[in-house]
Amino acid sequence: MKQKSGYKARKDLTELIQVMTSLTSEHNLEKLLKLIVKSAVDITDSDAASLYLREKDFLKFVITTNKTLEARMGREVFESTIKAFSVLISKKSISGFAAHTGKIVNIKDVYKIKEKPYSFNKTFDEINQYRSKSMLTIPLVNREGNVVGVLQLINKLTKKGKLTTFKKYDEEVTISLGAQAAVALENVKLQENLLKSHYDSIMRLSAANEFRDNETGFHVQRVSYYCELLAKAAGYSEDFVKSIKYASPLHDVGKIGIPDKILKKPGRLTEEEYEIMKQHTVIGGKILSNSDNDIMLLAQEVALSHHEKWDGTGYPYGLKTENIPLSGRITAIADVFDALSNKRVYKPAFPLDKTFSILEEESGIHFDPKLIEVFLSVKDDVEDIYKRLKDED
Amino acid sequence: MKQKSGYKARKDLTELIQVMTSLTSEHNLEKLLKLIVKSAVDITDSDAASLYLREKDFLKFVITTNKTLEARMGREVFESTIKAFSVLISKKSISGFAAHTGKIVNIKDVYKIKEKPYSFNKTFDEINQYRSKSMLTIPLVNREGNVVGVLQLINKLTKKGKLTTFKKYDEEVTISLGAQAAVALENVKLQENLLKSHYDSIMRLSAANEFRDNETGFHVQRVSYYCELLAKAAGYSEDFVKSIKYASPLHDVGKIGIPDKILKKPGRLTEEEYEIMKQHTVIGGKILSNSDNDIMLLAQEVALSHHEKWDGTGYPYGLKTENIPLSGRITAIADVFDALSNKRVYKPAFPLDKTFSILEEESGIHFDPKLIEVFLSVKDDVEDIYKRLKDED
Repeated sequence: MKQKSGYKARKDLTELIQVMTSLTSEHNLEKLLKLIVKSAVDITDSDAASLYLREKDFLKFVITTNKTLEARMGREVFESTIKAFSVLISKKSISGFAAHTGKIVNIKDVYKIKEKPYSFNKTFDEINQYRSKSMLTIPLVNREGNVVGVLQLINKLTKKGKLTTFKKYDEEVTISLGAQAAVALENVKLQENLLKSHYDSIMRLSAANEFRDNETGFHVQRVSYYCELLAKAAGYSEDFVKSIKYASPLHDVGKIGIPDKILKKPGRLTEEEYEIMKQHTVIGGKILSNSDNDIMLLAQEVALSHHEKWDGTGYPYGLKTENIPLSGRITAIADVFDALSNKRVYKPAFPLDKTFSILEEESGIHFDPKLIEVFLSVKDDVEDIYKRLKDED
Repeated sequence: MKQKSGYKARKDLTELIQVMTSLTSEHNLEKLLKLIVKSAVDITDSDAASLYLREKDFLKFVITTNKTLEARMGREVFESTIKAFSVLISKKSISGFAAHTGKIVNIKDVYKIKEKPYSFNKTFDEINQYRSKSMLTIPLVNREGNVVGVLQLINKLTKKGKLTTFKKYDEEVTISLGAQAAVALENVKLQENLLKSHYDSIMRLSAANEFRDNETGFHVQRVSYYCELLAKAAGYSEDFVKSIKYASPLHDVGKIGIPDKILKKPGRLTEEEYEIMKQHTVIGGKILSNSDNDIMLLAQEVALSHHEKWDGTGYPYGLKTENIPLSGRITAIADVFDALSNKRVYKPAFPLDKTFSILEEESGIHFDPKLIEVFLSVKDDVEDIYKRLKDED
């Protein structure tokens, strides 16, 4: 095997290092997967690359890129033809073999495999009228030495675009890329798990009030999803959408400070009792105060402002129109929608169409008219959440 | 400048790639900092390296390594002589210049700097009888293009250990390492912030009960820290220590399900009322149930078992000795210690020595004797937490 010139080797490796730094900084799983396959074909001058992630005893095919087919069909059409599938981790398939043994598999022509435990699956080629020839398959190994996936490169190309085979040098480069990809994938998953844990904690602790008031744990979940949906449909940033999803379930956390005799009273509250009840907004604001955490700051805003009304007749401060924080205006719609569309001790569940029309009537009175318009434009998605998280009768 | 041979360049870069993958997988800030300076001297064959992290308008010196001085004094002694300091980001110092301009500074001899805005600070050399000569200073730039720190290499060595100067090639390699280090540092901080947010949420939501019962928000904080301290002193894993710190503040979350007339009763509870009160353990277990999050699972265990007693006379299940989960045995000590050493409506605060001796008397009766022994062995640390988070009178 010919040694690459110092200059070429350094250029490739400089490129590799840049890619590795990009991998480390990518926190979005989907973008990270795309970056891995794109970088793999760029660095090795291959025509195609596929990525499989391990799920217990299987390799799940997650993403692929193919220059020839994308040029022929267009990227979107090509992507739409790709179907998810899984391969058992065993010596019988090429990717399975790499995952099973932890070894690199470098094949000159996949149609000419002889005396190997694995064989090549021609289905993809036949469906897409493609000819796979050289193939380099490497296991992605995490820092504990476990295989977390497989990266597969297909059809190495010369500078002039002719088919050739993968060299020792490609193996080395791809192994480096794979090691970094494995760690980057694990970091992203770790981060997603952390976020999930945090959301889980917020959800169950905000649902704890169900042991005192008459709402179910599903109420806070639905409100959280309605707020997420509304904020997204209204075009706010991904960050805000996530934050309101996390913050809104805490809207009633201040009810913990309301005495049983008021909170649990089955009949109508006296004026005096109602004044105490209103304090749940202020108490919630206090519980969630003095945080340097953005979600808690937003949750404090929501707790304080979700009973304000567009026309200024709400509480605790009687704020008007856009003086009411956006988070409070969003949560107010979600909260009232949920109260109306579900049974309460003092009222039956209203049908969805009636609920929507009550909200529409209150547009510009109780609610921000622009947000109501958006909310009504995503009725179908609202209904999906409603059905998925229905209270039991 | 001479081009390195292809082989040498590839060997170095392979090493660099391995280091980069290690950087990506390191989630502990202290270990990451050590890894950065150690890798920097190894890869560039330098005698010393220092790392500065940006804090607003300053560079904070965080870690250094120096082969010559560590050989002369021993690593521990050398480390103990290093003092924290900060440098204003301006053109007047070398590290400040690199941070201010975002430019690499490669100096052949720091004692012979001429007509530059910056000058070399000889203090370190004078104190340690060291002679800095060649110096390579590079800014650490994150993916948004902001300088997050500075990496400084001192005294490049030849293979034979003689002083030489940093070459273009060292600049390239260090820039790559620096780019990866910057992203790795940001990832670790992001993760730490996420964990902090999660802890913050747990703390304030578990402290929310203070609006109903007579305990203050500091109670849950102190219990959390006492549990952390006890688990650490007893030699449990870092993971368990962190988990019990997070889980223990939730021990009384089930009190939300106890009616006001019992929870807020100033006098002694009747037997019937006490039976209801005991239910806070079971309600807490229910609130925290069905999670796939390890911290919530441990919190559920704590909520259920923190009123069990070593001799089997506790509740809700009357478990004995080691049948009581470890988490519950630890939290029981922390919770009772805190109740005794602080004022309650039904009792004054006991002095610390009296509190410790009551716990000692209850060793093997209420509490796990081994854990009590450990707890008593860290009295000073317990007192520190007690004083730091004292309730107001």
